[in-house]
Amino acid sequence: MTDFKLSCPVPAAPQKTVTLGHGSGGLLMKKLIRDIFLAAFPDPALHDEHDGAILEPCQDKLAFATDSFVIRPIFFPGGDIGSLAVHGTANDLAMCGAQPLYLSCGFILEEGLDLEELEKAARSMARAADEIGLRIVTGDTKVVERGKGDKIYINTAGVGRVITENPILPSRVRPGDAVLLSGDVGAHGAAILSVREGLRFETQLVSDAAHLWPQVRALLESESEIHCLRDLTRGGLAAALNEIAEKSGCAVAVEEELIAIMPEVEGACEMFGLDPLSLACEGRFIAFVANGYQEKALAALKGAGCAAAIIGKVLESPAGEVRLKTHLGVERILDAPSGEALPRIC
Amino acid sequence: MTDFKLSCPVPAAPQKTVTLGHGSGGLLMKKLIRDIFLAAFPDPALHDEHDGAILEPCQDKLAFATDSFVIRPIFFPGGDIGSLAVHGTANDLAMCGAQPLYLSCGFILEEGLDLEELEKAARSMARAADEIGLRIVTGDTKVVERGKGDKIYINTAGVGRVITENPILPSRVRPGDAVLLSGDVGAHGAAILSVREGLRFETQLVSDAAHLWPQVRALLESESEIHCLRDLTRGGLAAALNEIAEKSGCAVAVEEELIAIMPEVEGACEMFGLDPLSLACEGRFIAFVANGYQEKALAALKGAGCAAAIIGKVLESPAGEVRLKTHLGVERILDAPSGEALPRIC
Repeated sequence: MTDFKLSCPVPAAPQKTVTLGHGSGGLLMKKLIRDIFLAAFPDPALHDEHDGAILEPCQDKLAFATDSFVIRPIFFPGGDIGSLAVHGTANDLAMCGAQPLYLSCGFILEEGLDLEELEKAARSMARAADEIGLRIVTGDTKVVERGKGDKIYINTAGVGRVITENPILPSRVRPGDAVLLSGDVGAHGAAILSVREGLRFETQLVSDAAHLWPQVRALLESESEIHCLRDLTRGGLAAALNEIAEKSGCAVAVEEELIAIMPEVEGACEMFGLDPLSLACEGRFIAFVANGYQEKALAALKGAGCAAAIIGKVLESPAGEVRLKTHLGVERILDAPSGEALPRIC
Repeated sequence: MTDFKLSCPVPAAPQKTVTLGHGSGGLLMKKLIRDIFLAAFPDPALHDEHDGAILEPCQDKLAFATDSFVIRPIFFPGGDIGSLAVHGTANDLAMCGAQPLYLSCGFILEEGLDLEELEKAARSMARAADEIGLRIVTGDTKVVERGKGDKIYINTAGVGRVITENPILPSRVRPGDAVLLSGDVGAHGAAILSVREGLRFETQLVSDAAHLWPQVRALLESESEIHCLRDLTRGGLAAALNEIAEKSGCAVAVEEELIAIMPEVEGACEMFGLDPLSLACEGRFIAFVANGYQEKALAALKGAGCAAAIIGKVLESPAGEVRLKTHLGVERILDAPSGEALPRIC
């Protein structure tokens, strides 16, 4: 062995966690962006590394939506913060009757985050976007000190092409409209709860997190008259129904027996005193369909693979009220949840 | 005094801070959105309270950009996180040659945040957007636990209408291009530093934070041939010049004596051993202008009220290198900053 070998500098181990320097705008940040984001996201617009992306002109109206994701834990059964950040905003665009086309992503990273976790989340985003044909075209990265964030927060904003002639809006809901629900409710909230609390069921609870555009497109192309669409996120079915009832000035009546809930979700809710109708979904929506079109709409949703059901209808009054006919045949008011049963569910 | 009076419930004091319930998707969140965001942001698209906003069709190409803002402190001399969140993304659109039209905003609030501070920031956003004619059309609110955020983080994404025929991109920069700088550098970084460190100067250091669209429009309408625009944010002038040099495969040569820096900024930098050329600005940009057009471009910028200057030019080689001719007449390489001199500057 020679002195030369001994005096050779030991090569620095590659950095394995996010540091404040990764948010500096300098060389470290550039390395992070290239090694993780540009490696995961192939879009040429992003690879221009300019301040924004150029979108082709579009003859149609566009929809524009945004969502931030602060879910804990960042990986969960059925998804992760990356796929959720794509699905969430893509679904908001779908609820406007728009095909999701372009996505921006803004990362707020906590100092000390494992770079492998970031890479895994970024790859999951890329896969989710690719499945929908959504282009991740522009982004931003910030780093905050340890204890001023929680691993990863992601904001996405999306631009989509509206494919409907008539606007899809809460204010278009009319008495007589049928209320369709695209599947069973509460699985996302219950899955997150089960991970946080370490619950075990005979079958694992898996989040319903999914992108809804194929289902929504099938519905819109069925030539049913669709007045409003709303995905069930925070506050679940109860919050969504109440928002639409209030904004439309109508009443909504739904039947508990027509609303599918998995037994594991019921079980988790009973254990924690939660209402499955107020539990978040991340892959379910409701549609308000003009009277006479509900069967056609239902068939379209079923054709797209949804376990959809007609769960109720819109009434003239009392304005803003949601009524639930329970399993026992009793009618009660279904209130919007007030506070926070499960924080940071998305 | 009667028993009745004593038994009257004391009216609950109105909530003055953000709670986890404000992020629930329920009634508390709705109240927060209406009392603060809808009260500050007048746009009808936002008041539809739908999952996204509908934008009118546009014959031109669109630009799409995003930025997250994690600045500390959230109020500083010359701006605040609200105005910064509008200017930052509007400026990114301007750098694409696009008139800023629509903005989304995603708030990540820390439990315990003073609602008055949130309201002040939201109003500042609204004012900043109004000044540019930018519509805040869609948004999202999340709440994280105390110690998992830092008061307010804001993401904005923006959509703008491209008014240039030719793309404005780093890859279009050519040897012979003149490098124009729109004003003095480093005031934003120095102002944040002075607040954090409690520095006092004879005149107060004020951030240069501003929207750049009127200046960029004047430049684009001057019929100068503009190859690239870049605003100076994190990493300052040094980072921006290095990025463009690298992406274009050219060299850039600039002269220190042509780069304006306020004496207070120089002073703060000397005290802390910082380089003003690597200090963030939030209201300055550089323009790469084809040879022969630089005087016309300079006149346009001056006409728009900028203390602009031609600070250098693009050379064929060495590819990716930025050279600075110092006050002493010596040439040296101006590197991009590597790590983080001032974290959370925007």
